[in-house]
Amino acid sequence: MAASEKDEDEKEEEELRQRFMAPPVSGLRELRRRRRELRSRMELLIMETQGEVCRALAALDPGASFAVDTWERKEGGGGISCVLQDGEVFEKAGVNVSVVFGLLSEEAARQMRSRGKSLKAKDGKLPFCAMGVSSVIHPKNPHVPTMHFNYRYFEIEEPDGTIQWWFGGGTDLTPTYLNEEDAVHFHKTLKEACDKHDLKLYPKYKKWCDDYFYIKHRGERRGIGGIFFDDVDSPSKEEVFQFVKSCAKAVVPCYIPIVKRHCHDSFTPEEKLWQQLRRGRYVEFNLLYDRGTKFGLLTPGSRIESILMSLPLTARWEYMHTPPESSKEAEILEVLRNPKDWVH
Amino acid sequence: MAASEKDEDEKEEEELRQRFMAPPVSGLRELRRRRRELRSRMELLIMETQGEVCRALAALDPGASFAVDTWERKEGGGGISCVLQDGEVFEKAGVNVSVVFGLLSEEAARQMRSRGKSLKAKDGKLPFCAMGVSSVIHPKNPHVPTMHFNYRYFEIEEPDGTIQWWFGGGTDLTPTYLNEEDAVHFHKTLKEACDKHDLKLYPKYKKWCDDYFYIKHRGERRGIGGIFFDDVDSPSKEEVFQFVKSCAKAVVPCYIPIVKRHCHDSFTPEEKLWQQLRRGRYVEFNLLYDRGTKFGLLTPGSRIESILMSLPLTARWEYMHTPPESSKEAEILEVLRNPKDWVH
Repeated sequence: MAASEKDEDEKEEEELRQRFMAPPVSGLRELRRRRRELRSRMELLIMETQGEVCRALAALDPGASFAVDTWERKEGGGGISCVLQDGEVFEKAGVNVSVVFGLLSEEAARQMRSRGKSLKAKDGKLPFCAMGVSSVIHPKNPHVPTMHFNYRYFEIEEPDGTIQWWFGGGTDLTPTYLNEEDAVHFHKTLKEACDKHDLKLYPKYKKWCDDYFYIKHRGERRGIGGIFFDDVDSPSKEEVFQFVKSCAKAVVPCYIPIVKRHCHDSFTPEEKLWQQLRRGRYVEFNLLYDRGTKFGLLTPGSRIESILMSLPLTARWEYMHTPPESSKEAEILEVLRNPKDWVH
Repeated sequence: MAASEKDEDEKEEEELRQRFMAPPVSGLRELRRRRRELRSRMELLIMETQGEVCRALAALDPGASFAVDTWERKEGGGGISCVLQDGEVFEKAGVNVSVVFGLLSEEAARQMRSRGKSLKAKDGKLPFCAMGVSSVIHPKNPHVPTMHFNYRYFEIEEPDGTIQWWFGGGTDLTPTYLNEEDAVHFHKTLKEACDKHDLKLYPKYKKWCDDYFYIKHRGERRGIGGIFFDDVDSPSKEEVFQFVKSCAKAVVPCYIPIVKRHCHDSFTPEEKLWQQLRRGRYVEFNLLYDRGTKFGLLTPGSRIESILMSLPLTARWEYMHTPPESSKEAEILEVLRNPKDWVH
């Protein structure tokens, strides 16, 4: 390698280092060396997304800062958890990267694949690799919605050496009160990211999102949706990766303008209370239905604090709380019960 | 029937009416008419327990009162939910009676029987009857523990007419801070109730309680235990009923003295915060592990508000909260991780 090429290389590495919240699990040098492999490119993408989102959030909450925890999983891999807690703007904001590998039990493998594809195991164990970035942002102000996103990549090796791979992910919004302008902005930004790849994706993944974030016993969705997809392994690894990249890049533009617009809105104690009740529903969904949480709790050696980071700082459950008809509280409930199309 | 006998009967009926929070699901007259049947005796017992506990709690929180909701289940049966919310002493206190019957799906039937006894179904449906009293009391003061109890009776009819029946139940305590005297009083009262029937019961059901209320992903029990049993169908229906009756009668004496002793204790904001974090764990257990909650959410036409009444009014999740060594917070954690024997 020529000296100038080496300088160029070091410069690039230094730039990446500054954009990341911590050194990547697989090591920066290693990732750069294997930069043509999809696993490396995905790890670089999730690291970059974590950095981007954390910086954008921190810029809005100057008094607070992200605690950065690097953790190792003794069975293989590790992660980086960034959490900002009890800030001025954010009650709890977590952005978590994990890159784990090792052997998976058949039960955990079943939990992983939503479509229940058959996986042949030798001695009931399957070598796997799972990586992703996931985040839940709970703001303080009830006029700023909660946002969640997660982009992930899986590989499972079958006994005959076949590698099954797939991507999953999504971004969705959970407002305490409905603001149509925000809802349209959020969905429009996601739609644009999808449309670059295939016009069929947004409608399909918008519906999947409404179906997935369903709190069955309440007959309500968790929020006003966004996009959600799982188990995606076509048309090709490269094309799905490019799509996932577009989605990851859309996180900041779909959410941050909404936070900026409302983080100084005034609010009443009653509005705060309604937010707390909605937080309770968020907890119900995550603990009772979320496949990611279940999968996480089932994975041996998983990091509980990083999985349950998604729970709000505070939540509330009142017996038989019913908002009055035609109230702003009833307005959002109506949309959670009957999802709307926000962009066409 | 002679006139004096009829008077006697009406007097008894009037007395019962005054002791109950609402008319029983099966009707007072019907229950009195079939008073020799176990189902009727159990329904009278759960109604009486509900009344006793509600009155004892209300007496300690004079500013607040129980809201009493009578509800019907369109598939069969109904219930009475009594909830006191945001009182002076109690943050949320719920005492719920339900008497439901109808047809059970095989999946729900499987959830019901902890030992997974085989149940033969015709067309996948089984006629069933389930009744019980269940209660969770979340006090405001962090020096007053949360208490839960539940006593229930099930019958399932198999296609050949065989009736499978069993009892389940338990009473357990979840303190925010450890108070040994309270722990001993609580366990001693339960042990005395058990010992009247069989000296083997308390040790067995104490251990079952520690095993059942286990928050696996945290490596902690929900509280300091008590007694728990499920699927009990021996030595005889009558003997198990008498045992359950003793347990139900022990609820007030095992808990109320502890509330009285501490409800005026002073506490710091830090102690309140620790209580809120422990409430978060309570939510984790109930939504992730509790079989009663899962069974309830699976039963068609179940009353969600009565099932989720067990959740605290408020809860909190902090990322990576770890109490300092040798603190009072670390003291209770130690006992939750390694259950102790409180009476011998």
